[in-house]
Amino acid sequence: MIIILKPEATKKDADEILVQIGSVGLKPLYMPGTERTVLGAIGDERKLGGLHLESNPCVDRITPILTPYKLVSRESHPADTIVEIGGAMIGSKRFTVIAGPCAVESMDQMLLTAQAVKDTGAHCLRGGAYKPRSSPYSFQGLGKHGLEILHDVSEKVGLPAVTEVIETEDVSLVEHYAAAFQVGARNMQNFRLLKALGRSSKPVILKRGMSATVEDLLLAAEYIVSEGNPKVILCERGIRTFETATRNTLDLNAIPYIKQHSHLPVIVDPSHGTGVREYVTPMAKAAVACGADGLIVEVHHDPKSALSDGHQSLDPDQFERFMDEIRPFVQAAGREL
Amino acid sequence: MIIILKPEATKKDADEILVQIGSVGLKPLYMPGTERTVLGAIGDERKLGGLHLESNPCVDRITPILTPYKLVSRESHPADTIVEIGGAMIGSKRFTVIAGPCAVESMDQMLLTAQAVKDTGAHCLRGGAYKPRSSPYSFQGLGKHGLEILHDVSEKVGLPAVTEVIETEDVSLVEHYAAAFQVGARNMQNFRLLKALGRSSKPVILKRGMSATVEDLLLAAEYIVSEGNPKVILCERGIRTFETATRNTLDLNAIPYIKQHSHLPVIVDPSHGTGVREYVTPMAKAAVACGADGLIVEVHHDPKSALSDGHQSLDPDQFERFMDEIRPFVQAAGREL
Amino acid sequence: MIIILKPEATKKDADEILVQIGSVGLKPLYMPGTERTVLGAIGDERKLGGLHLESNPCVDRITPILTPYKLVSRESHPADTIVEIGGAMIGSKRFTVIAGPCAVESMDQMLLTAQAVKDTGAHCLRGGAYKPRSSPYSFQGLGKHGLEILHDVSEKVGLPAVTEVIETEDVSLVEHYAAAFQVGARNMQNFRLLKALGRSSKPVILKRGMSATVEDLLLAAEYIVSEGNPKVILCERGIRTFETATRNTLDLNAIPYIKQHSHLPVIVDPSHGTGVREYVTPMAKAAVACGADGLIVEVHHDPKSALSDGHQSLDPDQFERFMDEIRPFVQAAGREL
Amino acid sequence: MIIILKPEATKKDADEILVQIGSVGLKPLYMPGTERTVLGAIGDERKLGGLHLESNPCVDRITPILTPYKLVSRESHPADTIVEIGGAMIGSKRFTVIAGPCAVESMDQMLLTAQAVKDTGAHCLRGGAYKPRSSPYSFQGLGKHGLEILHDVSEKVGLPAVTEVIETEDVSLVEHYAAAFQVGARNMQNFRLLKALGRSSKPVILKRGMSATVEDLLLAAEYIVSEGNPKVILCERGIRTFETATRNTLDLNAIPYIKQHSHLPVIVDPSHGTGVREYVTPMAKAAVACGADGLIVEVHHDPKSALSDGHQSLDPDQFERFMDEIRPFVQAAGREL
Repeated sequence: MIIILKPEATKKDADEILVQIGSVGLKPLYMPGTERTVLGAIGDERKLGGLHLESNPCVDRITPILTPYKLVSRESHPADTIVEIGGAMIGSKRFTVIAGPCAVESMDQMLLTAQAVKDTGAHCLRGGAYKPRSSPYSFQGLGKHGLEILHDVSEKVGLPAVTEVIETEDVSLVEHYAAAFQVGARNMQNFRLLKALGRSSKPVILKRGMSATVEDLLLAAEYIVSEGNPKVILCERGIRTFETATRNTLDLNAIPYIKQHSHLPVIVDPSHGTGVREYVTPMAKAAVACGADGLIVEVHHDPKSALSDGHQSLDPDQFERFMDEIRPFVQAAGREL
Repeated sequence: MIIILKPEATKKDADEILVQIGSVGLKPLYMPGTERTVLGAIGDERKLGGLHLESNPCVDRITPILTPYKLVSRESHPADTIVEIGGAMIGSKRFTVIAGPCAVESMDQMLLTAQAVKDTGAHCLRGGAYKPRSSPYSFQGLGKHGLEILHDVSEKVGLPAVTEVIETEDVSLVEHYAAAFQVGARNMQNFRLLKALGRSSKPVILKRGMSATVEDLLLAAEYIVSEGNPKVILCERGIRTFETATRNTLDLNAIPYIKQHSHLPVIVDPSHGTGVREYVTPMAKAAVACGADGLIVEVHHDPKSALSDGHQSLDPDQFERFMDEIRPFVQAAGREL
Repeated sequence: MIIILKPEATKKDADEILVQIGSVGLKPLYMPGTERTVLGAIGDERKLGGLHLESNPCVDRITPILTPYKLVSRESHPADTIVEIGGAMIGSKRFTVIAGPCAVESMDQMLLTAQAVKDTGAHCLRGGAYKPRSSPYSFQGLGKHGLEILHDVSEKVGLPAVTEVIETEDVSLVEHYAAAFQVGARNMQNFRLLKALGRSSKPVILKRGMSATVEDLLLAAEYIVSEGNPKVILCERGIRTFETATRNTLDLNAIPYIKQHSHLPVIVDPSHGTGVREYVTPMAKAAVACGADGLIVEVHHDPKSALSDGHQSLDPDQFERFMDEIRPFVQAAGREL
Repeated sequence: MIIILKPEATKKDADEILVQIGSVGLKPLYMPGTERTVLGAIGDERKLGGLHLESNPCVDRITPILTPYKLVSRESHPADTIVEIGGAMIGSKRFTVIAGPCAVESMDQMLLTAQAVKDTGAHCLRGGAYKPRSSPYSFQGLGKHGLEILHDVSEKVGLPAVTEVIETEDVSLVEHYAAAFQVGARNMQNFRLLKALGRSSKPVILKRGMSATVEDLLLAAEYIVSEGNPKVILCERGIRTFETATRNTLDLNAIPYIKQHSHLPVIVDPSHGTGVREYVTPMAKAAVACGADGLIVEVHHDPKSALSDGHQSLDPDQFERFMDEIRPFVQAAGREL
């Protein structure tokens, strides 16, 4: 860690900090400059957290050398991690497609949609029973009844089910009905929920928050892994920027960044990432091309009647073309669909 | 509501939508243009939500006429709302200052800090027992024991206590120990939590999320109010932008916007809004000047030893100067401190 | 155009505006609602600009129905435009790669780099003689001498040259030496420059500004085309967001959006779009996959010695691998390299 | 400067860089860590620019210790700079108000508006002859004729005139007619223009770009000052963020930041900073309160008929109330209006 002192800091101020650094077992370093004094701390800098050096009025700023996350970092674990969801191996040579409606609406809707995506080659089924919505007047999901439908359809059709969990107290219920958890963008920093999921044995798809940096996302994953659950799949789904032409700005730069800095698999959600049906397929291809391990995409048997996100959902015919269109790119990437 | 159709939409497509509009009791309007057809729906457009017109493939985009929130809007409730926290009247002529440490760390720390802010004229005490932190390796708060300390100190010193609640299951516990709830930026869209707080009788300070628009904030408040709790205080605490010179970008434009669109009181957090001790006082003055009803500010008896946010905390002497410096601006605003 | 009046607007206010709408030849429409009055204007709404209705104190907001650009819109010109740069057909079935150093530094540097990219299959050569730099203390380019080098190397190696123009007074000089102009992100809204380029007969690569919406970009292109030069190539090069892990956030959503809304060709700059050498190739593949017509990429014969942007430049070997790696994706997209 | 090497960097790589650091006269420092090696360079780090260490493939990232600007920094020049515009002393104890229309439209409009703002106590007159507009179909300003009107009115009414210059070739013309230049947000990084203004003897009001960091703004000022013109006034006018409730997000945090890091005076533009007439006065008060040296505000004798920005312009009566309302805050700030 590098500690840059304020211009007015004295030698005595510096000495005090150097002693603190030494006291937690790191090697202190003193670098007086012409205009500023800089201090260094050599060793495992995560031990320095307890010193709260950033609160010291003599400190201007601090530059960490190491990443703040550890278990999810590629430095600590160079080989790619593969996470299994009911037979689908996310992060393997096989490219994974998770498809289904935004929300579970009824048994009919789920059956029709699930059968269609299964027939077209999807590997997992998505569908939300708990829907976080900006307005209290919007459809909030079917809750437990939605989970039951999802579970039944998953069994009938033979596709493992992925569904969102929005609160700690629901973790065991959701775990009972689904093959994998999904944590939505709004809950990426719901740390209590992350810790609870860290004590589960089922995989977690962790979506990036709308204003979360990739480092924030990796730290959120660290919460889950540090509690004991290594089965985390990261998901890029668009960030909030000044651009309003699309619902979000899909940040595909995050894919090679994550691949370089972490061993966890990463998938992309082109439905939320664009919010526009016509852009889902081109951006799915782009996600394949830059190295994503899979896609999570909204499909509805009748988007016009969808209770949420119909404008960004594909219908079964469109999903068939979607699969046909991404296939050559999956092959170009040296993978199989 | 104004519905703009795609260029390829036919008269038959338009007719279908016009029938739908009529079916929920609104007056449909047909406006064929030279290049595009536009439809209108006159009446309470919130009833149109169930039609999911945005999912219709013939629809290009939709422009609502009315605000999506209702109970918190000034149109529905023109007079200012005043919310009481243990005697402090937020939104009244008296300008309110809520002060205290970021986190409850110990009985000593709380007593020293609380007595200091009380002596200097603060109206409420803040202090977090549950701390949402980006990294799992950072101090996470004392939990229930922190609530007990906060409560005891609040009683001893005679200042009503405000503290953060981060999960639904903690609501009744926090309610027992504190005079008001605080919802942090990361939980602004934790809708389950908002609904639970809507069933409490204690006031809620609702902080704006880092990537939340002001409309999102008002919709989050609508969640609480629509469940039966009208005692909501909004709080601007900075949004995330490209600027890294300060921790967040304090969006004071939000204050006159909220005052125009809502009847709820609104306060400002210049500590998180800047993240820099030296900027807390100037930005507090600015908040007073543009119409905020109060401030929530971090004070610690010894910032250097603070377990979190020490770099943006004032010490008791600095807080005394802070109060002295904002006083003339409070008076210029026609209010009392 | 849809005009939403403020709640306090009277029938008389509305009538006044309706008369104004009629006076410029559009059909006025009166839609009184239960809480708000809405007005419509049917016809070519660009004629309404002169009325400045947004300045009317009775007007709350205005929703345009049509795009503000016309000549560059796909509605006005459904077929794809192909722009030629010295034999390279941008927007055709052939995918175009423009490669070369950030800045022209010397004859040797240009010759070595140009020969390498030519041998590897690049279609055009890039290289800046005028370098806009944030700091006055950074290398600012060789100016006219740089143009001469670029021109000579272009002739010797047999690659058409693309170079940045930063000021109106340089337009004829640059036109003399280069096959195509490049307008940098910082000059995307230098409207005097755009107009001057609109009077040239050479193609213009127009880079998106760091905080420009796609609509802003299309309006900037409209400036050039409306002056008489239809040879505009749009370029996505990343926008500025809160994310600091990469230099910019490459907004690939813009590609399908532009393809849907405009007939102009569009290319991507993965070097500036990421700012990290290792991410250039994956993001180039993504650009190919989502429908871009070409790439502009920084290559330097010795990045370590580059006077600018060396950290994001490929060396000749890396560029060879780059071409090999994007080829299968170009083929998957049904194009040729 | 602190140089953090990549994990794979060898001792030989480090040695090579240390030799380079020494070769330009700085003291090199070698700090091998447990996981990473860190190098330091002690001395005037601006000399390191020529080494382009960021391009070295062994270098992960670089942390500068000193600010990249020098002449405009408070470290190099601790006392506040006062810039005079025709008698108005910006940065002095007197708070300065610059008022007038967005654009010069006619002699009548300018005379009526100028007389009104003069009578109410404004210190300078604003009015644009060259208007950079997003759309080529919007009013672009009267050009030279506008400058003549501005000049005549300035003389008649007795208010020094401030006007925008958008291109290097106009500098001497604008200099002839106006008391001070204004550089608009879109030209903040038009470096050729900045250099030309640096060779003028008239003051320059430099507006912050929509996506410029405060550091970018100070570097742009450094361009002007380093060419010989120390009379620079910085201007905060809002940045582009995800928030669409207001035209821009006025970043008042920038005011105390600039006051701490630079000796230059800084003013605020609450008209563009909000884009909403009703928010101009509250945000002007906030600007006063957080330490701005002045305001630049749009006033039009008849905003309804304004050719640009009428929606954010005050009429003469509103401007009178504006001055009355900010007065107590100016006094609270210990200044005079």
